[in-house]
Amino acid sequence: MKAAIYEGSKKIGVGESEAIAPGAGEVRLDVAYCGICGTDIHIFHGNMDGRVDMPQAIGHEVSAVVAEVGEGVTNVKVGDNVAVRPLLFGEPSNFDKGFPHVGKNLKFIGIDLPGGMQSSWTVPAYTLHKLPEGMSLAHGAMVEPAAVATHDVRLGRVKAGENVVVIGSGPIGLLIALVAKQKGARVILSEVNENRLDFATSLGMDVVNPIKENVAEKISELTDGAMADCVFEVSGSAPGVEVMTELANVRGRIVMVAIHPQPKPVNLFKFFWSELELIGARLYEECDFDEAIALMADDKLSIDKLITEICPIEEVQEAFEKIDANPDGIKYLIKCN
Amino acid sequence: MKAAIYEGSKKIGVGESEAIAPGAGEVRLDVAYCGICGTDIHIFHGNMDGRVDMPQAIGHEVSAVVAEVGEGVTNVKVGDNVAVRPLLFGEPSNFDKGFPHVGKNLKFIGIDLPGGMQSSWTVPAYTLHKLPEGMSLAHGAMVEPAAVATHDVRLGRVKAGENVVVIGSGPIGLLIALVAKQKGARVILSEVNENRLDFATSLGMDVVNPIKENVAEKISELTDGAMADCVFEVSGSAPGVEVMTELANVRGRIVMVAIHPQPKPVNLFKFFWSELELIGARLYEECDFDEAIALMADDKLSIDKLITEICPIEEVQEAFEKIDANPDGIKYLIKCN
Repeated sequence: MKAAIYEGSKKIGVGESEAIAPGAGEVRLDVAYCGICGTDIHIFHGNMDGRVDMPQAIGHEVSAVVAEVGEGVTNVKVGDNVAVRPLLFGEPSNFDKGFPHVGKNLKFIGIDLPGGMQSSWTVPAYTLHKLPEGMSLAHGAMVEPAAVATHDVRLGRVKAGENVVVIGSGPIGLLIALVAKQKGARVILSEVNENRLDFATSLGMDVVNPIKENVAEKISELTDGAMADCVFEVSGSAPGVEVMTELANVRGRIVMVAIHPQPKPVNLFKFFWSELELIGARLYEECDFDEAIALMADDKLSIDKLITEICPIEEVQEAFEKIDANPDGIKYLIKCN
Repeated sequence: MKAAIYEGSKKIGVGESEAIAPGAGEVRLDVAYCGICGTDIHIFHGNMDGRVDMPQAIGHEVSAVVAEVGEGVTNVKVGDNVAVRPLLFGEPSNFDKGFPHVGKNLKFIGIDLPGGMQSSWTVPAYTLHKLPEGMSLAHGAMVEPAAVATHDVRLGRVKAGENVVVIGSGPIGLLIALVAKQKGARVILSEVNENRLDFATSLGMDVVNPIKENVAEKISELTDGAMADCVFEVSGSAPGVEVMTELANVRGRIVMVAIHPQPKPVNLFKFFWSELELIGARLYEECDFDEAIALMADDKLSIDKLITEICPIEEVQEAFEKIDANPDGIKYLIKCN
């Protein structure tokens, strides 16, 4: 029973995972796989030391087998394969308007509370989504990032026949592109890393490299002048913010997926002139997990291709270092049992 | 038959208005009143010389009596009182998605084409909205700015019981506040001019002066911590853009009404974190004119109070100079016949 413990200063140690008996409404999990998210990399780099207690198990992209259920739990039973929606809602607030995933009392499990990169993990039963028969547990660890993408695409109101541009093709950018394609949209990925572009091309996407081409001209050419109905800004870069408004058609939607810690200049005139919309999108809701699982059950998201490597938990430090050293990698999973 | 002719360099001359016989689908109007819009002031100051032909009659906030109808016109008849929706749509474009008011081929009558600040004006019949019985022609000249407000409030999806903040209380800001109040929203106006604040207070609005108070704290106090469901940025100022994201609650909408010629720093993190929306809003659609007329027919928009002065067309130069000299004024109308 092992745990990947963030100890500060780019150090993820391997500690002991304690089996915590589930209380009422809780479930103890034998964790199968836990993906390494961009957020975990930020934690690794010390960028979130103000928020993460140390030492603490991190990780939140989890698939698991139910090991033990607490009193009153009816949604899962021992032996079920599950994915975890790592959100602890706390007391409902009057100010949340029915959106606790962005609410005042939200705690993110794996950041604000101990995470799932460990052999045994105890979480509230309401965070669990059953995996369908036939879905591997490795794929199950991809449900959480896929749910980010289904959430983003849902908030972007992407419809069949629309032109969609995704700026930035890390794991979330790629998943957004794949989900949008499933909606029947024509998807173009903008990315500066040529290997990632080749990868996107192998998934059937049109691509553009802003270092080599004028993105707006290329999008115009690829869409016969129509430009984009929906743009996803996933790059977190100033050039991404600068170009996003150029790519949108009249009444186009721009979904802000990336984290921009500092204010950035935005072409507000274009918002006014073409009645654009900017839509902030964070995390996911229950229905987004359901949709991600359904798409993955039908093998619609090329999940096998997105998993770069599966590493044993004993080598978690090396796995984090590998990600830093390999900008072409997509998703690394940690095998936790 | 007179016309207010922009001649460049802060000069609005009084010229001759020519009666142009209406072609097929056109209508000749005897213009009653034409309001002076902020855009006309920009023209007066030479800021739009690249777009406005000179010398040219300007003005687009028009009430009129139908004087003559061209072949095939059925929506109005001679003697009808009308307001003008000053948009020439041109050829429909494939790229406009059914929104020609922000379309590629839109021409704005009164900027791109000769305007209505003249005794006789010939326009397409489809631009006309009949005024209801009992509505004065002076009020009729306020339909166009009121339709900007009904459009903005509609795009902001304002509902009864919501908290609304309007940043900037010029004529459009005030009209937005009045329309939002009619939707059943609780409206707070933010404005730096104390006389305008007093005026807004006299209309039953709550107000805040960002020079004297912390706007976010005041909005929190007035809304018992809920903050704003919808914010209208009508100030065109950098502080307005800076504060707009601070005022919005989770899933709050921010409607970008003001023109910001240069990109401005926007707190994109807050868009992500609280899933905010930014909605660009420009001009109006047919239904917005219908709604403005209905609200004004029921005397819901305090139109009498918004009309600062009615000036004869012979004194149009003085009227423009008066506006420059009087930051407390709301709406000046030119009497064109």
